[in-house]
Amino acid sequence: MTGLLTASDGEPVAVENAAAKGPFVFVCEHASKRLPERLGTLGLPDEALGAHIAWDPGALAVAQRLSRALDGVLIHQRFSRLAYDCNRPPTAEGAMPAKSEVYDIPGNRDLTPKDRAERVAEIYEPFRHALSALIRARLDAGRPTILVTMHSFTPVYFGRPRAVELGILHDADSRLADAMLLAAERSATALAVRRNEPYGPEDGVTHTLIEHGLANGIANVMLEVRNDLLETEDGQDAIADVLRGLLDESLASL
Amino acid sequence: MTGLLTASDGEPVAVENAAAKGPFVFVCEHASKRLPERLGTLGLPDEALGAHIAWDPGALAVAQRLSRALDGVLIHQRFSRLAYDCNRPPTAEGAMPAKSEVYDIPGNRDLTPKDRAERVAEIYEPFRHALSALIRARLDAGRPTILVTMHSFTPVYFGRPRAVELGILHDADSRLADAMLLAAERSATALAVRRNEPYGPEDGVTHTLIEHGLANGIANVMLEVRNDLLETEDGQDAIADVLRGLLDESLASL
Repeated sequence: MTGLLTASDGEPVAVENAAAKGPFVFVCEHASKRLPERLGTLGLPDEALGAHIAWDPGALAVAQRLSRALDGVLIHQRFSRLAYDCNRPPTAEGAMPAKSEVYDIPGNRDLTPKDRAERVAEIYEPFRHALSALIRARLDAGRPTILVTMHSFTPVYFGRPRAVELGILHDADSRLADAMLLAAERSATALAVRRNEPYGPEDGVTHTLIEHGLANGIANVMLEVRNDLLETEDGQDAIADVLRGLLDESLASL
Repeated sequence: MTGLLTASDGEPVAVENAAAKGPFVFVCEHASKRLPERLGTLGLPDEALGAHIAWDPGALAVAQRLSRALDGVLIHQRFSRLAYDCNRPPTAEGAMPAKSEVYDIPGNRDLTPKDRAERVAEIYEPFRHALSALIRARLDAGRPTILVTMHSFTPVYFGRPRAVELGILHDADSRLADAMLLAAERSATALAVRRNEPYGPEDGVTHTLIEHGLANGIANVMLEVRNDLLETEDGQDAIADVLRGLLDESLASL
């Protein structure tokens, strides 16, 4: 086998609850910290390979809970964002970052055009195609379809603590984000909820929303939870409950 | 209080077993990962603050065992090498590193001359003075004095595994290192023992040996143990036993 992925790596894309009846399509681009075998450790120490630069800790767990609770399909990437960040287009520097926060990523430093092409072809493209085909099939069948991408962020970035706990992010189409922010306000949740924080479209994080939400004219939102809230299963349950409530209430207004 | 250290930080230097009768002076420059309060986190995430860039995990534990077993005095630095690396002179770039392995250290990036002077004056100088005075007093009293610095190193550096388990390092005076290497050979230890590995004097790591060993004409050695061997107390006990044996046997030949 040539290229990047080997048989033991398995597929780059996983789909859960494929027969779901609800309108939500949950997406988790940064679900996993696993690296394709051939990339080794990318020259990183263990502690970096387990850190937020490699994945969004807790994001998949919450997405799975939402998928079950709201009967929505869930699609997620099985490899680390360090191999390819599926929330970035191939032209973005951050797609195969040579640097992330305070970390150098030696194994991403001197990538040849062939290296880059392999990662795009074997990690990004299958993911993009799978999500695109899934949404297309639903729209062709006339099924209501709402895109929700699930992320988590580190509580301390470059040494600065972040106060926001739940970020509700949008690009040009803010319908769902507006509805969720309103629902959050009404619910008087104790969580610190913010619009387009700790970052927003200007930081290049809305690639999936643009490519699969805006392009299809479907409602879409990117959810960012501070990952210290997701360290335990109880925490994941609690956050999933809050998000489920906000999504449920927003559904009515869409 | 002006300057760097506050009352709650406490002293930069700790001395254990000060009344020891044996010839060994054990030194641990990288004993602690603690940072002076005023330096905050230096902009580093938790996982970096606990990693080998901040300290030599297990080194102090082994040095303490040796200090007790061989009745030697032990002197160690109470602050992280990220604040000031006491095995580097103030002129060395690595004394207050802005970069270590794959990590940027944001809080060391734009140090003013005042910042640097404070760290030198409040962390390095007290340590240097204490060690220097201790050795001077012993030599003035005609006491046999042998300098042993205790370190640990990371098993994987820039993604490359290191095969060496125990490094016996020396600068221009190799008497003690030679004796220990011979003793290791005779003992047929299962450990992978190497001279001046995983680095040596050419890497600038023999500052303490030069400043306090060579300058005083006393036998000296720097011991480097791969830190995966020091993760448990049993491991620390086992390594301390080996080192104790090697030092004991070497003593006869000096």
